[in-house]
Amino acid sequence: MSVRQKLYEGKAKILYVTEDPDTVMAHFKDDATAFNGQKQGSISGKGAINCKISAQLFELLEERGISTHFLEQVEPNQMLLRRVKIVPLEVIVRNLAAGSLCKQTGLAVGTVLKHPLVEFFYKNDDLGDPLLTIARLLLLELATPEQVEQLREKALLVNEILSEFFQNRGITLVDFKLEFGFDSQGELLLADEISPDTCRLWNQLETDENRRVMDKDRFRFDLGEVDAAYQQVLEKVLSEK
Amino acid sequence: MSVRQKLYEGKAKILYVTEDPDTVMAHFKDDATAFNGQKQGSISGKGAINCKISAQLFELLEERGISTHFLEQVEPNQMLLRRVKIVPLEVIVRNLAAGSLCKQTGLAVGTVLKHPLVEFFYKNDDLGDPLLTIARLLLLELATPEQVEQLREKALLVNEILSEFFQNRGITLVDFKLEFGFDSQGELLLADEISPDTCRLWNQLETDENRRVMDKDRFRFDLGEVDAAYQQVLEKVLSEK
Repeated sequence: MSVRQKLYEGKAKILYVTEDPDTVMAHFKDDATAFNGQKQGSISGKGAINCKISAQLFELLEERGISTHFLEQVEPNQMLLRRVKIVPLEVIVRNLAAGSLCKQTGLAVGTVLKHPLVEFFYKNDDLGDPLLTIARLLLLELATPEQVEQLREKALLVNEILSEFFQNRGITLVDFKLEFGFDSQGELLLADEISPDTCRLWNQLETDENRRVMDKDRFRFDLGEVDAAYQQVLEKVLSEK
Repeated sequence: MSVRQKLYEGKAKILYVTEDPDTVMAHFKDDATAFNGQKQGSISGKGAINCKISAQLFELLEERGISTHFLEQVEPNQMLLRRVKIVPLEVIVRNLAAGSLCKQTGLAVGTVLKHPLVEFFYKNDDLGDPLLTIARLLLLELATPEQVEQLREKALLVNEILSEFFQNRGITLVDFKLEFGFDSQGELLLADEISPDTCRLWNQLETDENRRVMDKDRFRFDLGEVDAAYQQVLEKVLSEK
């Protein structure tokens, strides 16, 4: 490739322009951050692992009719993507209570929710990515009511597909974050990544509440063996069921 | 009165039992707290002022068809109330952006909202009274969907009545907090108090963003002349228009 121009550098990825204005190259970094950037570190091999996991899961979702920004993986830690304008929302789907939901409601970690809960957070580092009510989301004009419903439906469909996929591999999909974007034709695509950085994944063979954790919570809460857990998720994702 | 048994002591009021199991006596205190109890102090004369303002506004709302827990004011800082079981929600109505809405969304203070915004916060000191989405409120079973709609409708009606009342007295009702409770017959009543402790009130004759403040923000942000502002609100509330 020719010398590449950086389009955007985030906490976990760098986006580069390509010859095609409608595609970008994503470079997955080993850098890890948590608590809105207050905790910083690195997870050995994370870039390539998350790139591969995301590629596999985007392909799975495409097969099941979900449009994503994924085009192809071109290097261990690089994938070609359709260029999108990101909707400044973090769409969270929760099957079990964990993380900020527990902190903000007092629900016990691991409480099984009767129905999957779709939540919207404002993707805004300065404000600390706050929880949004639908009324606030609409007031800030971050999406239209129709787009909110579209996001909710897509998120729930992704949840159905991924929950079953991980369940078949002995992993509980506790919750996860999705981001979406509009391409140059105005189509709403699933974007960002799907990886142990963005999903809470619990190993069903482990009952201990620390040992079961296979995701970024190992980094957030210094549970150790972070890279081994990410590697294990990759192996499970690649295994045929 | 005979020796009274304390039923409950909150930050701004003490509730005492009476001979009638369906009524309680509320004693309004001069104590003031802010930021979930982190800031503590006292506002001279506040108990009697807030008691009188609340009595006047509850009477106004009763005349306009809103059922409240108010029965009668019996002392300068004491009122007789119907006993209710409080719904653990703070129902906030906002006409202009201020306070936590600005902190959590980046909206500028004073932004006029196209429509009044009704929000629900979890009345839970341990959790810091967090914002609730409707989905979280229902998940926590803090109210039924029908009760949420009832609360929203009542809150909007209270807003219409109070906004007009204050507007006629040269005061902008920026936002306010309501609490509701169920009486022994299961009727939903407006409860708590309505005062400069629970409303943001801006003097329309003042353009300076500090001088216009007539409510607890004077205490929260050390703007001075707190008791004078409360006294001025009382005089405006008592004035005939």
